[in-house]
Amino acid sequence: MAYLRNCWYVAALSKEVQASKIFTRKILDENILFFRDQTGLATAMADRCPHRFAQLSMGKLQDDCIQCPYHGLTFNQQGQCVHNPHGDGRIPDKAKVKVFPVVERYSAIWIWMGEPALANPKTIPSCDFLDSENFYIGSDYMNIQGNYLLESDNILDLSHIEFVHPLFSSPSVSAGEYKCEVEGNTIWSKRDIYNDSQAPEFIHKVFRIPQGTVIDRWLHVHWQAPAIMALYSGGVASGKNRSEGVETPGFHWFTPETETSSHYFFGISFPKAMGEEFEKIAAEEIKQLRAPFEFEDKPIIESQQRNIGNKDFWDERPLILNIDAAGTKARRIMQKMIDEENA
Amino acid sequence: MAYLRNCWYVAALSKEVQASKIFTRKILDENILFFRDQTGLATAMADRCPHRFAQLSMGKLQDDCIQCPYHGLTFNQQGQCVHNPHGDGRIPDKAKVKVFPVVERYSAIWIWMGEPALANPKTIPSCDFLDSENFYIGSDYMNIQGNYLLESDNILDLSHIEFVHPLFSSPSVSAGEYKCEVEGNTIWSKRDIYNDSQAPEFIHKVFRIPQGTVIDRWLHVHWQAPAIMALYSGGVASGKNRSEGVETPGFHWFTPETETSSHYFFGISFPKAMGEEFEKIAAEEIKQLRAPFEFEDKPIIESQQRNIGNKDFWDERPLILNIDAAGTKARRIMQKMIDEENA
Amino acid sequence: MAYLRNCWYVAALSKEVQASKIFTRKILDENILFFRDQTGLATAMADRCPHRFAQLSMGKLQDDCIQCPYHGLTFNQQGQCVHNPHGDGRIPDKAKVKVFPVVERYSAIWIWMGEPALANPKTIPSCDFLDSENFYIGSDYMNIQGNYLLESDNILDLSHIEFVHPLFSSPSVSAGEYKCEVEGNTIWSKRDIYNDSQAPEFIHKVFRIPQGTVIDRWLHVHWQAPAIMALYSGGVASGKNRSEGVETPGFHWFTPETETSSHYFFGISFPKAMGEEFEKIAAEEIKQLRAPFEFEDKPIIESQQRNIGNKDFWDERPLILNIDAAGTKARRIMQKMIDEENA
Ligand code: FES
Ligand code: FES
Ligand code: FES
Repeated sequence: MAYLRNCWYVAALSKEVQASKIFTRKILDENILFFRDQTGLATAMADRCPHRFAQLSMGKLQDDCIQCPYHGLTFNQQGQCVHNPHGDGRIPDKAKVKVFPVVERYSAIWIWMGEPALANPKTIPSCDFLDSENFYIGSDYMNIQGNYLLESDNILDLSHIEFVHPLFSSPSVSAGEYKCEVEGNTIWSKRDIYNDSQAPEFIHKVFRIPQGTVIDRWLHVHWQAPAIMALYSGGVASGKNRSEGVETPGFHWFTPETETSSHYFFGISFPKAMGEEFEKIAAEEIKQLRAPFEFEDKPIIESQQRNIGNKDFWDERPLILNIDAAGTKARRIMQKMIDEENA
Repeated sequence: MAYLRNCWYVAALSKEVQASKIFTRKILDENILFFRDQTGLATAMADRCPHRFAQLSMGKLQDDCIQCPYHGLTFNQQGQCVHNPHGDGRIPDKAKVKVFPVVERYSAIWIWMGEPALANPKTIPSCDFLDSENFYIGSDYMNIQGNYLLESDNILDLSHIEFVHPLFSSPSVSAGEYKCEVEGNTIWSKRDIYNDSQAPEFIHKVFRIPQGTVIDRWLHVHWQAPAIMALYSGGVASGKNRSEGVETPGFHWFTPETETSSHYFFGISFPKAMGEEFEKIAAEEIKQLRAPFEFEDKPIIESQQRNIGNKDFWDERPLILNIDAAGTKARRIMQKMIDEENA
Repeated sequence: MAYLRNCWYVAALSKEVQASKIFTRKILDENILFFRDQTGLATAMADRCPHRFAQLSMGKLQDDCIQCPYHGLTFNQQGQCVHNPHGDGRIPDKAKVKVFPVVERYSAIWIWMGEPALANPKTIPSCDFLDSENFYIGSDYMNIQGNYLLESDNILDLSHIEFVHPLFSSPSVSAGEYKCEVEGNTIWSKRDIYNDSQAPEFIHKVFRIPQGTVIDRWLHVHWQAPAIMALYSGGVASGKNRSEGVETPGFHWFTPETETSSHYFFGISFPKAMGEEFEKIAAEEIKQLRAPFEFEDKPIIESQQRNIGNKDFWDERPLILNIDAAGTKARRIMQKMIDEENA
């Protein structure tokens, strides 16, 4: 299965790319380097000198340009060679490094891996609770040795919480109402649980509902291509209106590293209006969230990949359950977009 | 070269698969899990959930069923899904895990990798000295990075003892009489040494013959497909009748893990009639036997595999010596069986 | 790209192959073993027994013969089996190990990987400053995970010194005059720097020119197939005649291990006439030379290989600069020789 190229992928969390440092990451099988210019603007370019293919990331970043470590050709933010220290110093026409459009938004750097002329920042998936002016954001990164679609399957079907994360769950989760709704090119996967008397302590604490109270809960996931998901997790004492409850939003974004490995960016946010202490709380909560993803989801997803190997997911004839509706829908939308792109 | 599928392979030593625990092993390139039910009966099934291919071995064993770690589908010993915690709980027709026939015999678990309907326990290779009611068995396991046929070559040609295990040998071993006899679909590789005055101390001790006595020795290997070998090693003071001597039987069983790696099960036995202390002796002697296999045979076999790589053994045009008769015969029988199976 | 086979490759430094020991190295994808006979003469043979492909290097070297570790076939220096300990002891016609012509010269062992009948020691590249009767030689070895042609590119274009080895350089290096001259089937890559007032302290010391003196320097590299290079590095106070200056010669030899990895042999020499203390100086200086090669060149060359992967260098369309003239010429000569060999 090919990659969708004409779309925005998350390349890095903003905080991963620091001033005066070269950051590297493999995305869609390409080695890419990232840096910020003196105004803080992020740049992404192939980590490969057009001369003899040395990794530019081993070179020097100076004056917003990258100097190749090998023979010193120097490239600016547009990938254009601006200095050839050799011979008459003439700069050959082809002395260009591939540059990728990037946009910084939602505390992340988004990259366009396809035709640069088509890169329109307006098509970056929207995520209202991550506007960094109004929200404190806690975020983290993890590498997963599994295809990114195994990850959208994972987030789009939260019935797995009961089995994979028993401490965060109750039997009522998989018994809850499950709906998959398509909204344009996006998908909603909604799980609604009513009258849960077995919710774990943890849940009561997050939603600030006294232990012993029967509660209504919801887990609503919104998917946008390629694998950009928002998870709205909420709770309220049963009988009350949802608007009286608490809803905590989180994000789960995946970017293919290779066909069999992914970059996983995840996080949560709190409105700044809640108070300054929530900056610290966001940072602390995200640390706690990492553990279940790292020690519970990741091993399972990597075991799926081991069993699938290099074969095609559908060729392996997976069993279809009702819980797969949203994940399957996401796979189909991606396949359609890829087919159209390659048509 | 394909694998022979319709035959019994040794999957594990009985003691490797413990009550209430899931055991895993790759056999003929397939990840397989093993467990015992509450009566102790062993079960083998694909370590791969039919739903989304998670490794079932990461799940839970309860009530003789395996619950998938990911979404909780539960499978019984027949591989049949017996519980679907999702939606209306209906169990899809295809919700089945591949189950492999197994039989426990000779302190080992034997697995049938082919067409289940053809699995007949009567065709398990026979091994009279391993009847665990009448014998104390000492056994061990080792992984070898080499094709299993390199291993049957090894055991079927004991001339290598002189070079590979000099401490256990004397020059008379390769000078001994060598015979290869075919008996139905099985092979005998017999090495008989007469009037050996140079046998190492070790040999005199095992066969309880005073140092200095000239001895007659024999090493008789019996091969059965796919790579099930019994080695009868005996000795007696020269001039006496063999029946007055001592014979210690051992087994060497090999199962393909992949085309280039094998599972090696080996052991010895003592008749219970010899006394209870022989339970401990069996366990101790097998520990000592491990060293020469691990540090002398294994490195050589793995060096063969490195030199052969992924090429076909015969295509590499090995030199044929008289000592190869039995190993070559075994390779031919296996090839014939594989060809017939795929015809 | 295939290898050139009918040519002399450097297999090892003389000192790497010690008396009474078996040395192994993979060359052009073949595992080869080396030893010295009792007169000190070096022998090279395939590290692979013709019987069952065990690595002969795990066996014994005795009486100038190699005994296979597995079944004891014994091979002499001509690769001929001279002893079969089995059966009637007859030696099969095909009981031969492939032997490679070798010649010891310039403190190294040269190997001929092609048709043995064509191996003519007169075609070993000449290297006058390595005659070990008249020179003290300091030499060392390093494994590089990169194709050997990336290495000839490296040595044939010393403009990289300025960027890769800033401590050994001055901006004047890449500004220097650069010439590529073809001399028969060999190449000269000459870099001449005039009136350098910025040469590092190190340079002044090596050429024994007081700090502060403006100097003329030259870096002349002579290439012979397959990747045998001599580097003449000299310096003299500007205005004086070069013959009044100092010139230190060094060698850089590369041999393919695989398509993507190389053996790197490098060294320097001092005329014995300079005095006995130069034996020690040669040994010490080579230790210091190792660091820049290991920590500065090697990582860059390996990054090139990572970016090229298994693709063809030219298919990746490298940018051509004037500094590539000699490296490109060397690649073309090699390609022509390979094409002719396979015609
Ligand atoms: S490889 Fe980058 S300048 Fe030569
Ligand atoms: S992967 Fe096993 S139940 Fe879903
Ligand atoms: S493998 Fe070398 S003698 Fe048998």
